[in-house]
Amino acid sequence: MTALNNALGEFDLIQRFFKRKLTGQPFIALGIGDDCALLENLPESSNWAISTDMLVEGRHFLPNADPYLLGHKCLAVNLSDLAAMGAKPIGFTLALALPHAKVEWLEPFSKGLLALADEHQCTLFGGDTTAGPLTISITVFGAVPKGQALKRSQAKVGDDIWVSHNVGDARLALGALRQEWALDTQELALVTPRMHAPTPRVALGQSLLNHAHAAVDVSDGLLGDLSHILRQSQVCAEIMIDQVPSSETLQSKSTELRRLCTLMGGDDYELCFTAPSSEAAYIHQISSQLQLKLTKIGKITPSNSTSFIRLMDQDGEPLPEKLAEQYLKSFDHFK
Amino acid sequence: MTALNNALGEFDLIQRFFKRKLTGQPFIALGIGDDCALLENLPESSNWAISTDMLVEGRHFLPNADPYLLGHKCLAVNLSDLAAMGAKPIGFTLALALPHAKVEWLEPFSKGLLALADEHQCTLFGGDTTAGPLTISITVFGAVPKGQALKRSQAKVGDDIWVSHNVGDARLALGALRQEWALDTQELALVTPRMHAPTPRVALGQSLLNHAHAAVDVSDGLLGDLSHILRQSQVCAEIMIDQVPSSETLQSKSTELRRLCTLMGGDDYELCFTAPSSEAAYIHQISSQLQLKLTKIGKITPSNSTSFIRLMDQDGEPLPEKLAEQYLKSFDHFK
Repeated sequence: MTALNNALGEFDLIQRFFKRKLTGQPFIALGIGDDCALLENLPESSNWAISTDMLVEGRHFLPNADPYLLGHKCLAVNLSDLAAMGAKPIGFTLALALPHAKVEWLEPFSKGLLALADEHQCTLFGGDTTAGPLTISITVFGAVPKGQALKRSQAKVGDDIWVSHNVGDARLALGALRQEWALDTQELALVTPRMHAPTPRVALGQSLLNHAHAAVDVSDGLLGDLSHILRQSQVCAEIMIDQVPSSETLQSKSTELRRLCTLMGGDDYELCFTAPSSEAAYIHQISSQLQLKLTKIGKITPSNSTSFIRLMDQDGEPLPEKLAEQYLKSFDHFK
Repeated sequence: MTALNNALGEFDLIQRFFKRKLTGQPFIALGIGDDCALLENLPESSNWAISTDMLVEGRHFLPNADPYLLGHKCLAVNLSDLAAMGAKPIGFTLALALPHAKVEWLEPFSKGLLALADEHQCTLFGGDTTAGPLTISITVFGAVPKGQALKRSQAKVGDDIWVSHNVGDARLALGALRQEWALDTQELALVTPRMHAPTPRVALGQSLLNHAHAAVDVSDGLLGDLSHILRQSQVCAEIMIDQVPSSETLQSKSTELRRLCTLMGGDDYELCFTAPSSEAAYIHQISSQLQLKLTKIGKITPSNSTSFIRLMDQDGEPLPEKLAEQYLKSFDHFK
């Protein structure tokens, strides 16, 4: 029912931009082109890990977003979910609504998508394309050793809470684009790639199996995402908010702005995980192996009725209640 | 970035409307609520069959579509893909963009969706909800015995071509809504459920394993969907167009309208399949067991360069070339 310009056929579109050779791809018995794809069983000791995300123009990315980066990002956010369970990527399906089937958009979009897919040996094995407002939905498939997945429900009292790399730059970049604050050209160049081209921490997730207890990826904001772990594990947490790792760019800003971006900013796709103190040496070791900064930011504490997450400043003092409450409003797509 | 009225939280929304108990659900080790769901391996002799579909308001359904029927339909079209491979449904993930998180919409939508899911013991085990133009993307998971899936590429010269139940009513209803033609109230009441609440032929698909060679579900139009089988099997076909089964309502219309609706109409979600003549007795038997009409409509013929699909009228004469060409334009979402 939608008028389309410069149209390619749906069949041509899938063949031309998205269909890859499946030779040598493990577990995929039949790919794109039939009513269903067919997957083989994993080795007996593994489970499939499955995640679905939907990205909508105007909500998850700006209209006229660079299609190459968008292709990267929409797979990255799904790989990040696999990372947060400690799963190894295997493949994905893509459902794509787009207003116009234009080569100038499809070519870079598919290149960005498939470059990241190739990097993680994650094979596109099924999909659907249709006309409609630009919407991208990916379902990603990974493998995780049975009984070892990093579940949100497994944090234990006394665990250290860790964060990978830095958080807050994606929010800093978004705020500049929204004109909430100003950044100079050099700063923008440093932080915008963190918003547009996040790095899923796939190797880290797998390295944490049998060492960490619980993990989540920071997509909606550190405190909001951490609260999922706390709720499902029925524990509380104490966070040293000025130890939350941030970039030099963000450190050069006011304390208020740094705290807002690191604690509430989404879209960083770093991992936040909990592990017993006895694993600290191992965690430092994988940090150096992966060349990925890992920072301890707090502790899991027993469940209590007064403070779900206690926020402590650089002097080890609890933040004033009003200020703390402001940071603790968790992100919600419908609020 | 979207303003939302009458908002529910995303977390509440999933918990309240979509989360089901997984007790006793085979193969699902972890459902909604973590970064990923976890699936167990199937029995060793099976493959996973996976399909993804995306439904967009204004393209696949009308604005203000009844939410209960829409919930039914968006799962039905996915189950229909499993049926076309002969797979048994196991579970699905749901990605949902909707402009407003309104109880009045979500309650009937989830009821329609989950009623059909329960009927087929197909468990919702993961999902994502976000604000955006109404878009529904489902990835469905089924099981099919290894090496037995009904692939589009397996049709053989000499096979009979069959269609389940009737086709054309969904197109007849759509044309009336679009005011291409008129239907009286009683006719509308008979044909519109075929458009809004299709019946996926799940049991039929499984019954055809080891008996049929190739199958496809009629979503985009009988000839267009059949052409996928022909192209992938590198064969041609002869179709007795006046033997294509249609409802009494459609039979009461002009020959032209009946042919247009049965040959080119989409959205019926019947199965079109090919099987050796020696299987005719078995096919009649499952027809009576399933109480589902199955009609032979033509034959698979050797590949030739002149007529990909030969259309024959009730006298066994080929249709005039110009008329035939009109019917052979296959449906394409971007044309």
